[in-house]
Amino acid sequence: MKSHTEYLTMHVPSRRGFVNLTPEVERVLRDSGVREGLILVNAMHITASVFINDNESGLHHDYEVWLERLAPHAPTDHYRHNDTGEDNADAHLKRQVMGREVVVAVTKGKLDFGPWEQIFYGEFDGRRKKRVLVKVIGE
Amino acid sequence: MKSHTEYLTMHVPSRRGFVNLTPEVERVLRDSGVREGLILVNAMHITASVFINDNESGLHHDYEVWLERLAPHAPTDHYRHNDTGEDNADAHLKRQVMGREVVVAVTKGKLDFGPWEQIFYGEFDGRRKKRVLVKVIGE
Amino acid sequence: MKSHTEYLTMHVPSRRGFVNLTPEVERVLRDSGVREGLILVNAMHITASVFINDNESGLHHDYEVWLERLAPHAPTDHYRHNDTGEDNADAHLKRQVMGREVVVAVTKGKLDFGPWEQIFYGEFDGRRKKRVLVKVIGE
Repeated sequence: MKSHTEYLTMHVPSRRGFVNLTPEVERVLRDSGVREGLILVNAMHITASVFINDNESGLHHDYEVWLERLAPHAPTDHYRHNDTGEDNADAHLKRQVMGREVVVAVTKGKLDFGPWEQIFYGEFDGRRKKRVLVKVIGE
Repeated sequence: MKSHTEYLTMHVPSRRGFVNLTPEVERVLRDSGVREGLILVNAMHITASVFINDNESGLHHDYEVWLERLAPHAPTDHYRHNDTGEDNADAHLKRQVMGREVVVAVTKGKLDFGPWEQIFYGEFDGRRKKRVLVKVIGE
Repeated sequence: MKSHTEYLTMHVPSRRGFVNLTPEVERVLRDSGVREGLILVNAMHITASVFINDNESGLHHDYEVWLERLAPHAPTDHYRHNDTGEDNADAHLKRQVMGREVVVAVTKGKLDFGPWEQIFYGEFDGRRKKRVLVKVIGE
């Protein structure tokens, strides 16, 4: 069994934003030499997400509006987590809706994807450096 | 390490619906010959879900009502994604709540499940052919 | 390829609660002898969750309030699932928001975690014994 691990550095300049990770994940997969196996891509921070959906800016706008409705940022004193001095309780909630990680099949050396699947990083408390882990296992 | 990949064809005749995939996933697992490992089951489309929950029609009704409350289909012009000519923005949101994929342990050649766990395909934009990927790795 | 499977017994005395599984998962990983691979941790029950987030009691309070807003327990006759004699339909919904499982990278014999990542069991229909599965594969 082969395994290969890399850490991608993320730096979203705004509080919230989406970044398409697919090209970088494909590059890691090529470097791993794995032809058949699984690839795990996860946020290493608990106010961010890795998820798979469409590379379409209108949809990303809809996610932003929808997540803000499900888990509003303000009033920040509505959340007990923010009593610790943070103002990011909503980010911990939003990340649960979108998910921490994806596991993708690797077949014949490629991400075994449907036609519209793309891997995104979802930032909900940005303006600082964070990391994404990519781990490939297989043969 | 063994690996085995299959693609299941789904065709839900209505916009939304749930299909129990467990018997097909068990069949794929048997065909793989894997006794110890992991099995990944994921939607290959971004308006559909694979999730694990109860095979109980009342609950499926509750999911339908609840998801429609969290992410309503109409008014469709409420969503910027639908400016592209689609009317399925809500399906992209519903799928995030329910999830894209499940990873299940394979132990002694079986899905290592609790007593009520069943694998479902959740369709949120049906009336067309879609695919589910099943990948087994292990020994 | 090595594999190692254990079942953790959970017994949350209240209807809902969160339990930090990280020390037990680390112990299972050490016992497995796996240095490079993946570890799967999942609820074996469909009214419970395994998720990764912060070990902070204010945040856990916020999750409790938020999930009760998204999927209220009462009125219990609002849910068709409860026509079966159950009163736990809301627990099946809450678990979908929080997720069934996590897959974590194992690197150099450790959980390959960011600084604040901790693995939690989320109980939404407790006061009885349940199980969590931990499976490690790798080398």
